[in-house]
Amino acid sequence: MTTPDSSPVCVIGLGQIGGSVVKAAAAAGREAFGYVRSARALEAVRAEGFAVFDELESALEQAERRGAIIVAAVPMRATGGVFAQIAAFGGSCLVTDVGSVKASILAAAQEHGLAGRFVGGHPMAGTANSGWEAADPALFQGAAWVVSVDETVSSAGFARVARLALDLGAAVVPALAAEHDRAVARISHLPHLLAAALANTGAAGGELALGLAAGSFRDGTRVAGSDPELAEAMCANNTSAVVEALDEALDWLTEARTELALTGQAGPIVRAGHTARAAYDRLAAARPAISRIDLGEADWRERLAEAGRSGAVLRSWPL
Amino acid sequence: MTTPDSSPVCVIGLGQIGGSVVKAAAAAGREAFGYVRSARALEAVRAEGFAVFDELESALEQAERRGAIIVAAVPMRATGGVFAQIAAFGGSCLVTDVGSVKASILAAAQEHGLAGRFVGGHPMAGTANSGWEAADPALFQGAAWVVSVDETVSSAGFARVARLALDLGAAVVPALAAEHDRAVARISHLPHLLAAALANTGAAGGELALGLAAGSFRDGTRVAGSDPELAEAMCANNTSAVVEALDEALDWLTEARTELALTGQAGPIVRAGHTARAAYDRLAAARPAISRIDLGEADWRERLAEAGRSGAVLRSWPL
Repeated sequence: MTTPDSSPVCVIGLGQIGGSVVKAAAAAGREAFGYVRSARALEAVRAEGFAVFDELESALEQAERRGAIIVAAVPMRATGGVFAQIAAFGGSCLVTDVGSVKASILAAAQEHGLAGRFVGGHPMAGTANSGWEAADPALFQGAAWVVSVDETVSSAGFARVARLALDLGAAVVPALAAEHDRAVARISHLPHLLAAALANTGAAGGELALGLAAGSFRDGTRVAGSDPELAEAMCANNTSAVVEALDEALDWLTEARTELALTGQAGPIVRAGHTARAAYDRLAAARPAISRIDLGEADWRERLAEAGRSGAVLRSWPL
Repeated sequence: MTTPDSSPVCVIGLGQIGGSVVKAAAAAGREAFGYVRSARALEAVRAEGFAVFDELESALEQAERRGAIIVAAVPMRATGGVFAQIAAFGGSCLVTDVGSVKASILAAAQEHGLAGRFVGGHPMAGTANSGWEAADPALFQGAAWVVSVDETVSSAGFARVARLALDLGAAVVPALAAEHDRAVARISHLPHLLAAALANTGAAGGELALGLAAGSFRDGTRVAGSDPELAEAMCANNTSAVVEALDEALDWLTEARTELALTGQAGPIVRAGHTARAAYDRLAAARPAISRIDLGEADWRERLAEAGRSGAVLRSWPL
């Protein structure tokens, strides 16, 4: 295996996530530069002293010269287009991304002939705000950052992207793209649909209801306040997994509705939910650490995927 | 109408809400004392220097001597029993409560012959913690506190309970018990069911899913971490309104499920949810103030109820 490096980072797209990658990479002592399309964002990024190109090709040229890792951080609908441009440019840089769905992006990388130098990534971070203005060098501190261990991923590529995520303050969760997508449907995409349903049902109660809303409504609807395009893109790019998760949630709620109407009791769903939330709290409080996996062994991908399934994270390098 | 007073407060039950009433009332310069059943809680309350009785009858005797407002702050299942003891004692003190459902508690007050001196109340405050240890004199600062304007409520009783809520730092929302119950089903009871469904569906994804869970899951499941008995009691005491709210949420989610499976799009629910959350944010940022309602006029209850329906709050006395 190749030793992980501290190579420069070329970030394509400088919204909240891409901007935070640039800032966090610079803070970690890496050379970081980027490309952003909007003239207004370009000016804002330059005003803060970061190196940014106004043409994608210039950024890719610089990446090639510097042996950078290219981080595609554009909205998911634009990722295929960025991959096409990277492929047309024809360089050799390692490419990763930060999209919230991994199988469709891996497919796009394969479609554009980039699979051999692509390693999918997904930092589980972000707030309801967006744009360079919302970029924060500390955004990834303590966050989980999924790094793909699909069969197209080389051990050297995995090592470099994992090391980047660690440098930015995150803990690495190795996962297969398809498993990632089923998992995030449950814990990241479904919350948007439930938050929307709650917000809609609350607002239908008029000002009296909204005026009495306190912590449980505020927290339960928080993600409904984020950019609707993000939630729509998550669902559009991960449809079957989101439908599966939504069906499970609907089963719980439909059963609760039946029991409530018949007996006036909501015990089963409430008690199971309490246990489930406690399981989340326990795991969040003490995540096992991944160690002693040799990327030179033939089964390194499966061993890392299995560690990710068990809730373990990679916190430092070397493994 | 009677002038609102600063009468002493006798709190029955010193959990998080009752304890916070005692602490906040004392901080506001009112005489405050209470009754709590458990010997351990009794000791903890005394250790902090608050006056507390170990027999309910002694507390009621003191309330009668001091002309106190009695605040029933026991779990909802125990409220009927407390009303029975207050009725058996036979005093004349004004009685209020802090329960999260108002129609069934009003019915219990009527059943025990207390309706003429009972004014239902509900502070929209509380955290996932419970017990005297979680009591906080600042718990009600800025919170909405519903005060009943049902036809059994006298203008003098309303004025005294509203003034108490204001003294504790809350803003008063006048409402009819049945309207309150339908409103809180949407914004306070439904969130518990959705949070439980989300927690259950997330946990079914195993450690990989729970390990990737970030802000949207954490916020969306927060209330699943609170005492299950509270959510169960809310549902059990407000069944028809909760079923109605749950049915509306199920309609939204079922429609989204159909559209998602057919078209891969979740636009309608997500965009409506964004608009609904924005409406909540707007109201929370700038709530109209109730003023110039004369409690001496015949239609004072209806005028206050109408103001509450419009999202207005009472922030200071006199009206």
